[in-house]
Amino acid sequence: MNLNKLLKPRTIAIVGASEKAGFGGDTTRNYLKFSKNLENLYLVNPSRPEIFGRKAYPSLLDIPVDVDLVILCTPQKTIIPLLKDAAQKNCGGAVVFASGYSETGAGGKKKQDELVEEADRLGIAVMGPNCAGLANFIDGIFAFAFLVEERDRSGNIGMVSQSGQIVLAGLDSPNMGFSHVISSGNSCNVKVEDYLNFLVDDEDTKVVSAYIEGITKPKLLVETFRKAALKKKPIVILKSGRSAKSQELAASHTGSLSGSDQMLRAIFKRYGIFEAGDLEELCGISAALSWLGEMPKGRNCVFMNVSGGEAGVTADLVEEYGLPLAEYKPETLAYLKTLVPVYGSVNNPFDMTAEIGYNTPVMHNALKAISKDENVDAICIAYTITPEVWDATITHMVEAVKLARAEPGMKPIFWMPFIEHTRDSASAEALRSVGVPLLPTGRYACKILRQILDYATTDFEDTPGAVPEQSHIGQKAFSEYESLCHLAENGVPIPPQAIAATADEAVAKAVELGYPLSVKIHSADILHKSDVGGVKLNIRNEEELRQAFDSIMKSCAEKVPGAKLEGVLLKPMLKPGAEMIIGVNNDRDFGPMVMVGMGGVFVELFKDVQLAPAPLSRSQALGMIKGLKSYPLLNGYRGGQPGDVDGLADLLVTISEMAATEKDQLKELDINPVFVTEKGVAIADALRVTYEN
Amino acid sequence: MNLNKLLKPRTIAIVGASEKAGFGGDTTRNYLKFSKNLENLYLVNPSRPEIFGRKAYPSLLDIPVDVDLVILCTPQKTIIPLLKDAAQKNCGGAVVFASGYSETGAGGKKKQDELVEEADRLGIAVMGPNCAGLANFIDGIFAFAFLVEERDRSGNIGMVSQSGQIVLAGLDSPNMGFSHVISSGNSCNVKVEDYLNFLVDDEDTKVVSAYIEGITKPKLLVETFRKAALKKKPIVILKSGRSAKSQELAASHTGSLSGSDQMLRAIFKRYGIFEAGDLEELCGISAALSWLGEMPKGRNCVFMNVSGGEAGVTADLVEEYGLPLAEYKPETLAYLKTLVPVYGSVNNPFDMTAEIGYNTPVMHNALKAISKDENVDAICIAYTITPEVWDATITHMVEAVKLARAEPGMKPIFWMPFIEHTRDSASAEALRSVGVPLLPTGRYACKILRQILDYATTDFEDTPGAVPEQSHIGQKAFSEYESLCHLAENGVPIPPQAIAATADEAVAKAVELGYPLSVKIHSADILHKSDVGGVKLNIRNEEELRQAFDSIMKSCAEKVPGAKLEGVLLKPMLKPGAEMIIGVNNDRDFGPMVMVGMGGVFVELFKDVQLAPAPLSRSQALGMIKGLKSYPLLNGYRGGQPGDVDGLADLLVTISEMAATEKDQLKELDINPVFVTEKGVAIADALRVTYEN
Repeated sequence: MNLNKLLKPRTIAIVGASEKAGFGGDTTRNYLKFSKNLENLYLVNPSRPEIFGRKAYPSLLDIPVDVDLVILCTPQKTIIPLLKDAAQKNCGGAVVFASGYSETGAGGKKKQDELVEEADRLGIAVMGPNCAGLANFIDGIFAFAFLVEERDRSGNIGMVSQSGQIVLAGLDSPNMGFSHVISSGNSCNVKVEDYLNFLVDDEDTKVVSAYIEGITKPKLLVETFRKAALKKKPIVILKSGRSAKSQELAASHTGSLSGSDQMLRAIFKRYGIFEAGDLEELCGISAALSWLGEMPKGRNCVFMNVSGGEAGVTADLVEEYGLPLAEYKPETLAYLKTLVPVYGSVNNPFDMTAEIGYNTPVMHNALKAISKDENVDAICIAYTITPEVWDATITHMVEAVKLARAEPGMKPIFWMPFIEHTRDSASAEALRSVGVPLLPTGRYACKILRQILDYATTDFEDTPGAVPEQSHIGQKAFSEYESLCHLAENGVPIPPQAIAATADEAVAKAVELGYPLSVKIHSADILHKSDVGGVKLNIRNEEELRQAFDSIMKSCAEKVPGAKLEGVLLKPMLKPGAEMIIGVNNDRDFGPMVMVGMGGVFVELFKDVQLAPAPLSRSQALGMIKGLKSYPLLNGYRGGQPGDVDGLADLLVTISEMAATEKDQLKELDINPVFVTEKGVAIADALRVTYEN
Repeated sequence: MNLNKLLKPRTIAIVGASEKAGFGGDTTRNYLKFSKNLENLYLVNPSRPEIFGRKAYPSLLDIPVDVDLVILCTPQKTIIPLLKDAAQKNCGGAVVFASGYSETGAGGKKKQDELVEEADRLGIAVMGPNCAGLANFIDGIFAFAFLVEERDRSGNIGMVSQSGQIVLAGLDSPNMGFSHVISSGNSCNVKVEDYLNFLVDDEDTKVVSAYIEGITKPKLLVETFRKAALKKKPIVILKSGRSAKSQELAASHTGSLSGSDQMLRAIFKRYGIFEAGDLEELCGISAALSWLGEMPKGRNCVFMNVSGGEAGVTADLVEEYGLPLAEYKPETLAYLKTLVPVYGSVNNPFDMTAEIGYNTPVMHNALKAISKDENVDAICIAYTITPEVWDATITHMVEAVKLARAEPGMKPIFWMPFIEHTRDSASAEALRSVGVPLLPTGRYACKILRQILDYATTDFEDTPGAVPEQSHIGQKAFSEYESLCHLAENGVPIPPQAIAATADEAVAKAVELGYPLSVKIHSADILHKSDVGGVKLNIRNEEELRQAFDSIMKSCAEKVPGAKLEGVLLKPMLKPGAEMIIGVNNDRDFGPMVMVGMGGVFVELFKDVQLAPAPLSRSQALGMIKGLKSYPLLNGYRGGQPGDVDGLADLLVTISEMAATEKDQLKELDINPVFVTEKGVAIADALRVTYEN
């Protein structure tokens, strides 16, 4: 759907324009106050010939020109008739504030379906319903329904939100400057994904910022993320739905289904999406990326304070958030020592003392020296910007930062305040003008800086996606033997195995396989084999094997009366090693997701798993393994033999490729455990479940 | 040391008073601007007869009355002579801004020692040196060296900080109102602990707030904490030194040694100290406690939003920070449903919609109904307070909160904004006036609310402390056998054991103990027995025992040539269970600290340990065990048998009591592993190390 008439209209009509409080009046007042160009604006009100001194037309049809965009401030029942009028004026976009649609349950959902059908038929892209409007600061259009403080909000952040209140939060946040602001509301025929796609394409947008409750176009979302990653345009997303409670609320708020939240977050990770945990983070990250002159080229930071106490607090925060501290080269250290008083010392975090912090030329020199140090990738000034400048400290420091930023090749500089984020607007503007982000306070600042360093130093690997063509229902589980055979057919190495329908056959097969053996029931009807006496381990000879065969068949027949018992599965006992779990879960929206974790309590109690969309490149697979908290246990923990991590990565890659190929058949794959020893990896059990097509 | 003349002086002299910028001028300007009573102030300057229109005296000796407190704005070399003059005026307190003392290294340390010696001799309590001064808002004294914004800062927070900049941060933070503000600087003869003790005793102080770099009076600190806990006066502490880097910085900043940081945090926990991780938290917690009308009586919260999107974000945050959501009683639910529009739904977090949020009487009724619900302990309004009130929403909501707070028995209400903490000061003041804390944004707010709920619902258990009388040097390690015997003598149950000097003796003892046995070298000189072939397990009969004896003696003699080999230690093999570690480490400052954790990777990789000062009550011991992330593994994980948690708690208590009794001998005790089964606990190995007195 082409969004140009909706988001970059040449002519605009406000229907229901008014001077009174409410959607119509507030939108009109905002528009007249904040928009650049009023020549292409038409007001419509059947009962008033003039509004705020401007001519008002009785209806859309009375407007003498074509109208690209209509802003409908009127109640629900008027919307479809107005769209029909609009279509006659070649309209291509409509903003619908009215509520009473899918957010109100089944009846409202039906009304929304009718709206979508009509809008699609008329070729009109609808923002909303149940939304708060839009602003386009590039073309100077401000069609937003909530009153806001008067100030310049233009900039390069493109923001889209399913919540009007969260758009308002963005507009109220003093560091945010926008290209476009979009309150998508119920997102009826234009979805959040369409807006994201528009903003990623939009040349005026440097940073895309979004609040999302639900995903409806997963393929477009992934394509948009990929496009953004390739052009290195950062996307920041606050996605509610980490908790069951917020998923429930989203359903009642905009009728969104959160979908598989954990999977979505794995997709975010793959494409380098900045994930915000709350509004302060959403605005903090977006504003930082918007202001930042250029990305750091590495991860090593120098923190500069004007207080020993605050340097100590900084050191603790920096460690907590995993921000790497640069080590000065000897020449930098020697130079900085000449700047501090005799009792001072040069550290990182660096307490500059008043000698540097209160002296613009000296601090300028210090910044130059630190920036020139090849061990340093970024600088962060950690100092609170008080509401009013009472001594000259801040002025001196901001001035030094401005001078430094004018130096060619100056490394990126950030500014982190300690106490609330109330900013002296002159200092803030000075920092913005030289590309120095003013971050929120302490913890938020460190979290944001860490995310920016991660983004800046991670190369995007453009692996293909594997989103299934359609949803499927029903499922079919395979026996361990069948599951393992299927893996083998797809190039996954599996240990030797054999099935035997009778005890005699088992004995014959055992000779080929070699003792000791594991013996398990072979039946697609029995998934939990141990629970029904279907497993015997460490079978050492023919006698034990015959006993095991009889015992297993008898026990399973008793305990699972209807099951078809096809005999037993024989496998040589594996050399135990670190027990890993590999799983594949084919997500409705995002296709097969591969999971790896260390078996037992690590997965279950410590939730120590890594998840990523299939297929995986080798470096992605290695990254997942190394991202596990339990990774040290695989890698020669306490002087032990390192496990075959490379072999495990190869296995992950092969399984992920198989899963991607089978994206329209595979439902789940559970490989548990995989034993990892120093000599290799060995799959001990597998369960494959497909869709029943 | 009596601090009354220092902190509550009746007469004050500023020495070095001036009209120029700098310590003297800025302090004078501040004093004249912010102090209530100027009648008891005397300015001293040898070269000017008048300052800001007030008479200035040539010297302290010229002042016609006694002077309780002198504020010395003059350089280092003048300080001791001035103290001598001051003593002649019966002075009892001095504020010393001058630097060049222990923060500058060995030479400065010597100067500081001289200052302390002289001040002690003269009976003068010194704040500083290298400090920024004090303010006493109760008596209206503002003797602070940094210029600050003009506003009312009086309140009930007593703040002490080793960093002047952090005091300034507190003074600049708009929600902070103070009884006393103390910049302790190098804390020469009055220590941070003395100030804390004063503030805990001070009737005008409701909340004690501190930034601390180092501890020098651990006994006084613990006594002060205990006193505060008994009178339920909250103490909030930001202690730098979580990282090695910040410990290093503290040493160079105020010459403080951070001491054993982990131990100090265990002490904080014992006495319910609020621990702040940065300045935003220090001020946020302090201000919240200062404003809060009364503590919640339980933990269940209701969150109220005026946006579905923000309700979702709240739900995610609330889960992340472990804030329990109240479940409405049916009558509350039924009533609230009558208030929301037909499409609205009543949840927690509760999107009130405009019907409630924009309507004062309706919101007042909603608050009354929610507060009356016995399932609800606290209410949190989650809504951003914008810098200026553009629509009436905030006014409506604040007004409703004010009305509600006037209701008898109203539950505590908190206010959490989402976007930066820039407050509309009228709204903030309205909330403060009715005891509703205005928290910092999102994550900070949730963390603070969680801490307040924990504090409010945890009863302080007044167990005795066990701080050692003096430090010791040297150490003596005991063999496993001796260590275990010592435990047994102190009432700790240990499994049967025997030592044997010869193989024949071993065989005889084995008959009494019963096979299978573990056999280990018995030698106080060998601590790592396995590494030198000194351990054989699962010895099943006499033959194996003789072989084991010979092998152990031979291997140890070869591998540890000088060691005195006293034979072997025999013990029946224990039934393995969950492997726990119990340790005691006798802290220089805080005495024996007891540690418990699950053995192996849980302690080492996941750092999953609990630490608390000895002795432990039974409920404290149980609390430690249940506080382990790995606790589910002890308690019938996945349908397994629950381990003997009670037995483990008893063991912890007994060991902690022994450690407390031996606080002047014991250095370390390492009990590793303790096997915990469903039937009991069994110590498998122990190492006791004492001081070599």
